[in-house]
Amino acid sequence: MSSLLAVPKRLILGRARRSDRADDTLLPKRLALPVFAADPVSSVAYATQELLVILALGGTAALVLAPEVAVAVCVVVAVVVLSYGPLVRAYPGGGGSFAVASRTLGPRAGLVAAAALLVDYTLTVAVSAAAAIDALVSVLPALASARIPLAVGAVLLVMVVNLRGRQEAGWSAMLPVYGFVVVIGVLVVTGLVRWAGGDTPVAASAGYEVERTGDLTAVALGLVVLRSFAGGGAALAGVDAIANGVPAMRPPKGRNAALTLVGVGAMTIALFGGVITLAVLSGVTVARSACDLRGLPVDCTQFTQQTVLAQLAEAVFGAGSVGAVLVAVVTVAVLLAAANSSFNGFPLLAATLADSGYLPRQLARRGDRLAHSNGILVLALGAVAVLLVLEAQVGPLLDLYLVGLFTSFTLAQVGMARHWGQRLRTARRSARRGPLAGRALAVVAALCTGSVLLVLLVVKVPNGAWASVVLMVLLGVAMQRVHRHYDLVSAEVALGEDEGPDPMPARVHAVVLVSRLHRPTTRALSYARATRPSTLEAVTVATEPAAARELSEEWGRRRVSVPLRVLDSPYREVTRPLVEHVKALRARGPRDVVTVFLPEYVVAHWWEAVLHNQSNVWLRARLSATPGVMVVSVPWQLASVVAGGDLAARAAEGRSLAQQAARMGAADSDREPLA
Amino acid sequence: MSSLLAVPKRLILGRARRSDRADDTLLPKRLALPVFAADPVSSVAYATQELLVILALGGTAALVLAPEVAVAVCVVVAVVVLSYGPLVRAYPGGGGSFAVASRTLGPRAGLVAAAALLVDYTLTVAVSAAAAIDALVSVLPALASARIPLAVGAVLLVMVVNLRGRQEAGWSAMLPVYGFVVVIGVLVVTGLVRWAGGDTPVAASAGYEVERTGDLTAVALGLVVLRSFAGGGAALAGVDAIANGVPAMRPPKGRNAALTLVGVGAMTIALFGGVITLAVLSGVTVARSACDLRGLPVDCTQFTQQTVLAQLAEAVFGAGSVGAVLVAVVTVAVLLAAANSSFNGFPLLAATLADSGYLPRQLARRGDRLAHSNGILVLALGAVAVLLVLEAQVGPLLDLYLVGLFTSFTLAQVGMARHWGQRLRTARRSARRGPLAGRALAVVAALCTGSVLLVLLVVKVPNGAWASVVLMVLLGVAMQRVHRHYDLVSAEVALGEDEGPDPMPARVHAVVLVSRLHRPTTRALSYARATRPSTLEAVTVATEPAAARELSEEWGRRRVSVPLRVLDSPYREVTRPLVEHVKALRARGPRDVVTVFLPEYVVAHWWEAVLHNQSNVWLRARLSATPGVMVVSVPWQLASVVAGGDLAARAAEGRSLAQQAARMGAADSDREPLA
Repeated sequence: MSSLLAVPKRLILGRARRSDRADDTLLPKRLALPVFAADPVSSVAYATQELLVILALGGTAALVLAPEVAVAVCVVVAVVVLSYGPLVRAYPGGGGSFAVASRTLGPRAGLVAAAALLVDYTLTVAVSAAAAIDALVSVLPALASARIPLAVGAVLLVMVVNLRGRQEAGWSAMLPVYGFVVVIGVLVVTGLVRWAGGDTPVAASAGYEVERTGDLTAVALGLVVLRSFAGGGAALAGVDAIANGVPAMRPPKGRNAALTLVGVGAMTIALFGGVITLAVLSGVTVARSACDLRGLPVDCTQFTQQTVLAQLAEAVFGAGSVGAVLVAVVTVAVLLAAANSSFNGFPLLAATLADSGYLPRQLARRGDRLAHSNGILVLALGAVAVLLVLEAQVGPLLDLYLVGLFTSFTLAQVGMARHWGQRLRTARRSARRGPLAGRALAVVAALCTGSVLLVLLVVKVPNGAWASVVLMVLLGVAMQRVHRHYDLVSAEVALGEDEGPDPMPARVHAVVLVSRLHRPTTRALSYARATRPSTLEAVTVATEPAAARELSEEWGRRRVSVPLRVLDSPYREVTRPLVEHVKALRARGPRDVVTVFLPEYVVAHWWEAVLHNQSNVWLRARLSATPGVMVVSVPWQLASVVAGGDLAARAAEGRSLAQQAARMGAADSDREPLA
Repeated sequence: MSSLLAVPKRLILGRARRSDRADDTLLPKRLALPVFAADPVSSVAYATQELLVILALGGTAALVLAPEVAVAVCVVVAVVVLSYGPLVRAYPGGGGSFAVASRTLGPRAGLVAAAALLVDYTLTVAVSAAAAIDALVSVLPALASARIPLAVGAVLLVMVVNLRGRQEAGWSAMLPVYGFVVVIGVLVVTGLVRWAGGDTPVAASAGYEVERTGDLTAVALGLVVLRSFAGGGAALAGVDAIANGVPAMRPPKGRNAALTLVGVGAMTIALFGGVITLAVLSGVTVARSACDLRGLPVDCTQFTQQTVLAQLAEAVFGAGSVGAVLVAVVTVAVLLAAANSSFNGFPLLAATLADSGYLPRQLARRGDRLAHSNGILVLALGAVAVLLVLEAQVGPLLDLYLVGLFTSFTLAQVGMARHWGQRLRTARRSARRGPLAGRALAVVAALCTGSVLLVLLVVKVPNGAWASVVLMVLLGVAMQRVHRHYDLVSAEVALGEDEGPDPMPARVHAVVLVSRLHRPTTRALSYARATRPSTLEAVTVATEPAAARELSEEWGRRRVSVPLRVLDSPYREVTRPLVEHVKALRARGPRDVVTVFLPEYVVAHWWEAVLHNQSNVWLRARLSATPGVMVVSVPWQLASVVAGGDLAARAAEGRSLAQQAARMGAADSDREPLA
């Protein structure tokens, strides 16, 4: 890291943390709950919306089924949450569906689960950011045109918070989650009390009707209901993140994670059920596009739909009231906290995968705030890309998201069923009750999530969710290839138990690449001489014969003691003649080695890099691919651009040192005579 | 260039050319004419259109002035073309307005001219490609939705043709230019004959009217006429390119260039005048947007306007006739040839600028087909970017283009006026006639082009053409900075006349960076030992203390003779502890040098590069900025990925050589004992 970047990095990221203080960042329960609850709890904001939007496709006939669909969703949530309790106890090392699937169903299933999770973490961030902006636009419609940049900005904001380290992220999640639960709880209770008192709140959109072409057949209606049910399944977002996040909890990790799960599940079900009930009572009408609504006061292209939560808040507390604003604030906050929870889970999972060699090693490295900085950056990049491609629309994002979500749920539950089955085989008679109950729960949960997955694959994949499947498959294949590559490399470079050091090279041929005779060249020549090579020569490639002749003449005039070899290059290439020359040198002996010295400029500004060393890039790549060659950079720190801060200052210091050395050298017998 | 890429490169670019055959690519006149005429001649396709489109803004009152405006444009073209004759004779070295302005008006004016030209070459390519696609869409309206990708594809096509070398580009220009001149000539003559015979052709759009809000004031009408006149000035496109292209002509270069200019000017004026006349006679009605037209048969968003040429062709030869198709074909072809002519001019100018140190040096290098490949790539990239930003619309592209075009014309003419003025001062009495006439011509031309520039700056710059001005200024400043940078660097690195070689380093401290003890490490250790350093140590940075302890133990167990130093890194950084250690080593003596050996993997596929050597990138940058340090890569060619073709094969060869060497080394006294 250049110290040019160090100051802003410190300002943004805070002080660096020492390795030996890593335990401080483990999460106590009061922080673990909000960190991991943010995702499921916040899903209330978009899962209810999605359920109603899809039901609306079926018109009034379908909308009356909203309570039934909501109950079905709540049952699935309850079953899944309960079934995850045994899972986190069985795998306190973390990894969630990935760990379960890979240990019980084999590495291939594990890879599928891992790919699904990585994709889902990314989509959670995108969905949460998009939903947060929708909530914001509901109260500030003037921002509607800036939705995409705002959503991208939200992702980048959460990224920066997370690069500062996990502890801060925990604290920053606490207020939004508890705030959201309390405010939405008050909203639901107030609304229900008013309904019970006969003063039912009426949503602003209660008068609109959803446009629908013709009557639906029973089959079509059924499909709509199933799709809506699957959409509501978004309420399960983030459950697997808790299982993945176990290592970040304080001990007893398994118990704490299970308790966290139950608390989160209860809150989610209560809020989800309450919001749907209130939405049905107050007649909220939402559609994918405003132009699908009839009865709008203005042209549909000018009309910005409010979210379900925003409409309920205005219906219950009044438009523009403090309560309505408060609902918007906590909704935005909890959705950002949800995005944040993915920033906790993704780097942990990526590090686990990288440690096992399935992802590039640098994802396993901890950044200097103990956060997995590389994972955080990759996640943010992925989420921003998805937001841009899908124009920050919650619906299409959820279509992608749900497939991965329920793939990992189903894999985890099938894995747990097998886990308990294995226990049963080895368990004593008296100890069979626990495993039997565990297996029953896992099978029920697997059937629940499996049927949702089936619905998704039937009704969502033709709808664009195939992209999610493709992404998962590609990611899985890539991880397998990465793993194979690391395995092969590590076998190739391993030293045998009795293997000694490499044989010493017999002779070292030094080649100094020269284009002009200037101070970087003379420095490279004397450095090369200092390595006491067996042979030493300067080489120039005659891409411009006239320039090469001039160089030869100057070489002679200045009586440089190192011989200059001019390589012909009729096709004006630099690389090929040099590589061929180097190969020829090396062919002189089977154990000879060639060192190629490249004088290089070190520049102070990025734009200056374009002006220098361009041909060295190819050259270095080609020389590196040639066996028996060392490539030596002899840097020349340019002092000329003094305005450039740190690097330039260091270069200037280097220069004065060099001048000092030159002055001393002038009175020194070591100095090479020119002749 | 990796040989992995060499085969497709050869397939696309053809055989490499030797330097000593460079004269073969000089252009004879029969090729020079079409190469350089393509641009001015093809401008008839869009200049006539632009003139009419802008006049249409003024409604019928303005449209009747079309012949007058066209005559004014023709006069300007004639004056400029005539005035360029003396210019190319005076500057047979090429460079056009750039050379003239920098020699007569000073380097600052030269830079402005150069920046204007570079911008204009880029915009010519973009305008020509966009106009070519408009011509295509006029006969194939189904392609209207793919306009932008088609235009980008056209640019890339011309780029590939040019990367093959200049000669082919010349031949490929000949047929389109002569074809266009003949076909449009026949079109105009046929149309005029029919008019003379009382059977005036009627354009398909003759029945439409241009919508216009209210009556225009005289001032507004005047402005419209002036803008239209300026738009018609696009007919001068490419004249400066001839002046720049002089070095590509066969001797006598100046005379041949001047003759080419006159031929080109005559053709352009004839075609331009003819097409405008016929358009007025046949009642062609065009507007910027189809929705500005009244009387359309369908909804304006569904309507694709035909170009003026396409409408004339259908009016004269009949819709769908062979003649109409032929007009479309030659129009597309000549516009592509025009784009091509910029691909001749831009790299030449860029090379001239790079030779004088105003642009990065690699633009001065000739590619291996004697074409300036880098310049060609930069031009294509720029044109594609402009096309994408302006959605391949000819109108807005021309707005940008014309400002630069007339800036360079005006600079060239003012420069020529001063050129003749200087001649006058030194000329003998009897020889004053020539210079006097030259100066008069230059002044008239400067007034013509200057007034067009003034019109453009008044009526076009608020219209978006400011982007062109901003681009020119930025480019000019950038070129100045590049020049200053090269100057400073070259002064800094220059050897004094009596300066000797650099002093020899007193001691060389070798440091081998180690992360694990594997074969790349042992190779690096023995290579380092082969350079006979004064001190040698292996260094590992303990980012993970456990891993460092393990390494130390293995080091001891294997009794490696090189000592291992473990650097603490409480903040898990690799770079800083190593750089500090290196600085400490170097501080032992003012003339000591440190060589840092980095074992590096050489991979066979680009994606594998992500998996290795990531930390070396930062490390290398920081070490290079530290004075007195050499950075040595010890490549380890990975043999494991055998499927990967060339590089992998070479790596495998390297491995078997290494194994052979190891076998030999085992029976060799040179071999270092492990203890």
